[in-house]
Amino acid sequence: MRNLTDTDLTEAVIASFNGSERFKEIADSLVRHLHAFASEVQLTEEEWFAGIDFLTRTGHITDDKRQEFILLSDVLGLSMLVVGINNRRPPEATESTVFGPFFVEGSPAFENGDDLGAGAPGEPCFMEGRVLDLNGEPVPDALIDVWQADEDGFYDVQYADLDQPRGRGHLRSDADGRFWFWSVKPVAYPIPADGPVGELLAAGARGPMRPAHVHFKIEAEGFQTLITHVFADGDEYLDSDAVFGVRSNLIGHFEHHEPGAAPDGSEMDVPFWTMRYDMVLAP
Amino acid sequence: MRNLTDTDLTEAVIASFNGSERFKEIADSLVRHLHAFASEVQLTEEEWFAGIDFLTRTGHITDDKRQEFILLSDVLGLSMLVVGINNRRPPEATESTVFGPFFVEGSPAFENGDDLGAGAPGEPCFMEGRVLDLNGEPVPDALIDVWQADEDGFYDVQYADLDQPRGRGHLRSDADGRFWFWSVKPVAYPIPADGPVGELLAAGARGPMRPAHVHFKIEAEGFQTLITHVFADGDEYLDSDAVFGVRSNLIGHFEHHEPGAAPDGSEMDVPFWTMRYDMVLAP
Repeated sequence: MRNLTDTDLTEAVIASFNGSERFKEIADSLVRHLHAFASEVQLTEEEWFAGIDFLTRTGHITDDKRQEFILLSDVLGLSMLVVGINNRRPPEATESTVFGPFFVEGSPAFENGDDLGAGAPGEPCFMEGRVLDLNGEPVPDALIDVWQADEDGFYDVQYADLDQPRGRGHLRSDADGRFWFWSVKPVAYPIPADGPVGELLAAGARGPMRPAHVHFKIEAEGFQTLITHVFADGDEYLDSDAVFGVRSNLIGHFEHHEPGAAPDGSEMDVPFWTMRYDMVLAP
Repeated sequence: MRNLTDTDLTEAVIASFNGSERFKEIADSLVRHLHAFASEVQLTEEEWFAGIDFLTRTGHITDDKRQEFILLSDVLGLSMLVVGINNRRPPEATESTVFGPFFVEGSPAFENGDDLGAGAPGEPCFMEGRVLDLNGEPVPDALIDVWQADEDGFYDVQYADLDQPRGRGHLRSDADGRFWFWSVKPVAYPIPADGPVGELLAAGARGPMRPAHVHFKIEAEGFQTLITHVFADGDEYLDSDAVFGVRSNLIGHFEHHEPGAAPDGSEMDVPFWTMRYDMVLAP
């Protein structure tokens, strides 16, 4: 293992890894592609160090409220690729999309009809739907986690001085698989561009915008967990999502209403929106 | 850019990057290899998240005294590959090897003959050599940075309670290109295995040991900067260096002596070592 030329070096590194069969499979492929990348572009020492520095800063900006490595994976299309690899479902099932960096464990519990917005700035939006199986039968008691940005394009966790959740919560489908809640109308927003991922986008002359969407994570016994978004129809960024997450059948219709009666019987004295989207789970 | 299949996704991500020609070349190759890796191993969502978590923890353990991303690059053989790509030198020149994670900017200045050990535990070792050009002519006034581990296998920066440098410093070659200093005999040591890189080695059933060595960084006007080690002959880990850094012609002869006169005329009352190694710079 002395005096290794480039190709011998790759083989020596691969040969050095043992461990479980799966670990070795992953390590071998990772080393082979990592070395092929460096050789292919003839990576300079300055570029190598810029990469070390980039990863270091990505780690340092990451905390329990900001996950810059997930954001990096998102803008490199890796997240969506992994979603695709792992969620090959029957065409009737609702498709998955990226998890994103803003999910928080332990969101507050709500009942159907509650306001998950909880004071988030934005136009009121009534969202409803049913959780169904592939045959259209209701899935009761599904755990539905919802999180979204407000009308300024920020998630609650992006406000340094906000210490309670807003536009975030979980509820359960009723006996008919129905769920309904109030929140705010989502808007298109830029992914956080003040960190290393923002630098990467700037260097690549790429935009940071994501089309308006609401995140859903739906778990029910006997079904695959569904992690997805509902995108807002008509959004100008549906074809240039910074994280490549749009699927046509994940686009929901957001309907605008003048003040008056809302679908849940409440009387609204301001304009509001409604959106109805059914979630179809694969077994 | 909706409903992308895996291959379309890779092409869409590549197409999204613009910027400078060099940036685009690197981004394209990186995305292509990253996606090919994930597809090849059919990376699961759990494995993807384990990777996110691994990188996050690697970032969090990195600070101004510990560079876990360089250590990661080292054990994956990437550092040595980049050294090879960027340091194709005439065969007469001293070869380069990995920089490692323990270099510190602004090491203390010494004169020839001084003790760089500065209290580091270990058997005294007198090191000397000449800085030469490819024709064997002396290179005077070369800036020689030296850093090494002590007999317990630790660099100064690995001691949480040590606030001054030890086994680390810089000096200059004299008019004849000569340099000489005291330090301690280096020993084989494990790279830090209490972090994410240690977990990676354990998962791969790999050892963490590096053969005994002293780091040198040599800068002189009109010459390429040389970043290298001198390895100790006879070390049992010369053929299994955890970071793949050994080159046969970087192995120096460390000679053991009973108490008595040292090469610089000093009288030693304990056993000591000597090592002589010439550094040949490429223009």
